[in-house]
Amino acid sequence: MTLEMVAARAGVARQTVSNAINSPELLRPQTLERVQRAIDELGYRPHRAAQALRTRASKLIGYGIRPSLAGAPTPVLDQFLHSLSEAADQAGYRVVLFAATPGDDELGCYQRLLDEHGADGFVLSGTDRGDRRQGWLHDRGVPFVAFGRTWSGRDVGDWVDVDGAAGTAASVRRLAGQGHEKIGFLGWPKGSGVGDDRARGWQTTMRELGLSIRGRRVESLDDPASATEAAERLLAGGATAAVAASDTLAVGWYQALRRSGRTPGPDAAVIGFDDSPIAPALFPALSSLAQPLDAVGRECMRLLLERLGDARRPTEHVLLAPTLVLRDSV
Amino acid sequence: MTLEMVAARAGVARQTVSNAINSPELLRPQTLERVQRAIDELGYRPHRAAQALRTRASKLIGYGIRPSLAGAPTPVLDQFLHSLSEAADQAGYRVVLFAATPGDDELGCYQRLLDEHGADGFVLSGTDRGDRRQGWLHDRGVPFVAFGRTWSGRDVGDWVDVDGAAGTAASVRRLAGQGHEKIGFLGWPKGSGVGDDRARGWQTTMRELGLSIRGRRVESLDDPASATEAAERLLAGGATAAVAASDTLAVGWYQALRRSGRTPGPDAAVIGFDDSPIAPALFPALSSLAQPLDAVGRECMRLLLERLGDARRPTEHVLLAPTLVLRDSV
Repeated sequence: MTLEMVAARAGVARQTVSNAINSPELLRPQTLERVQRAIDELGYRPHRAAQALRTRASKLIGYGIRPSLAGAPTPVLDQFLHSLSEAADQAGYRVVLFAATPGDDELGCYQRLLDEHGADGFVLSGTDRGDRRQGWLHDRGVPFVAFGRTWSGRDVGDWVDVDGAAGTAASVRRLAGQGHEKIGFLGWPKGSGVGDDRARGWQTTMRELGLSIRGRRVESLDDPASATEAAERLLAGGATAAVAASDTLAVGWYQALRRSGRTPGPDAAVIGFDDSPIAPALFPALSSLAQPLDAVGRECMRLLLERLGDARRPTEHVLLAPTLVLRDSV
Repeated sequence: MTLEMVAARAGVARQTVSNAINSPELLRPQTLERVQRAIDELGYRPHRAAQALRTRASKLIGYGIRPSLAGAPTPVLDQFLHSLSEAADQAGYRVVLFAATPGDDELGCYQRLLDEHGADGFVLSGTDRGDRRQGWLHDRGVPFVAFGRTWSGRDVGDWVDVDGAAGTAASVRRLAGQGHEKIGFLGWPKGSGVGDDRARGWQTTMRELGLSIRGRRVESLDDPASATEAAERLLAGGATAAVAASDTLAVGWYQALRRSGRTPGPDAAVIGFDDSPIAPALFPALSSLAQPLDAVGRECMRLLLERLGDARRPTEHVLLAPTLVLRDSV
């Protein structure tokens, strides 16, 4: 199916069909309608590569996929990528992946996608302090949206994020409502955007409720063995409940209790974060905060499409609340 | 950076530069060398959209991302997608995602990517019995490779898969080597390609070792609650060890034991499959079979690139063995 066939069907010149697709304002309404009817009847879909050259729009959106690092907290990406792709498809865009490893050449990977495929914009994820991607894209006038806040430097772009602090605040309130006062926080080492945000919700809410946080915050890498040692320090300090920055960290609470012959439950409660497949698999099943990844994908694409349509509209930030999924660990 | 700038630098016509890129055989060696030097000096990278029109190659590879279904076994995709993207990048290709939901319109999603972006080929995953994608792509002469065997119908394409049967066979041998004879299989309902393959390795090896399989195979959906009931049936039948088709199913073994005050270990051993984040999080930590997803991604891209280079080469199938990761559950 080609432009020529549509032109023959509509009884117009090839250029007229091209104008109908790319610059409809140039045509008289009757002509436009005639071409549109021929396009519909023939089921013609313009080839993007040809269109890209005419309109300078590739209809491709780049997403740099980073390697998953053992021991590092990695979000479950497939749900996010699916909803992102679906929202892109509906708007006539496609998400194109490229391997991007954080470090010196990461920005080079973005540059190459621009050079070679003329990506119309980018979706970032895994933003952290010291992230150079947002400023780099902004300075070049490249539209982008981030899943994750701009944690440091100039807040120059649109982003969608999950409100970690609101999540851990809800966890503290839930545990306090059950009578707990000595509620610990089992977090990652200070300095990461996501981790500090999750700690902040715990800290602020403890203070609001008049509960002491002294000696109640411990740090651990995201693996069960070091989380167990950290949880033991919390228990030794008298904590009766814990809010964890991830489900993996919550596992430390389970194992620390087990070493002293106990089990999580009303007297030794714990709430995780991410509602990963780990949560329902533990015994007793772990309560956790579920991230609305479908909504994150949809909102990211909405913001990016708006930005593609209007490069100068004010930046927009969307914070989505996680949902507390209650199971037997509280 | 444009074709014109390269032409000026090399002192040749624009068309000569285009020929150097797309039809180098048309040029005299000295001319080709002169243009190549100008390209290198200027760091010129041809725009893919323009190139796509000249060469009919979009350098885009489609990957239909399916929604993750609650309760259904979903492979951990991010590791696979990263290695796939990296291998594609190295060969000058990009992986473009599109949302594809199994069912009536799934093939329509593939058709649209061909129509609109002229994808050069596809990577499939999640192949199962009754899968129509392989035959459809083959009949249209569209290059593809599948992560997952052709489980039914004509075996028409290249594929890479993880040898599930070899994995569960290794698990049975390991358990038998520790003295177990009553080794059960905790699987999904019969009829799925992946599930039946994993069951087959258990069954064949039990027979080879002269061990009875009567009453030793139970079925469950991939969720901890129904897996627990299934595992209770295995224990009631006298099984002293179990091979599970997934880590989630192995969780059923843990919980069934717990209900009778026991814990997995040498006397009540279990080995899962997938080595998901669940495995190290359980107590005691679950032994499991790790899928070599990095290698799967690389091999998929290798086969697809070979197919793009030679549409008529014989089909190639690659079966990769999973690795048994031993932890405290055996």
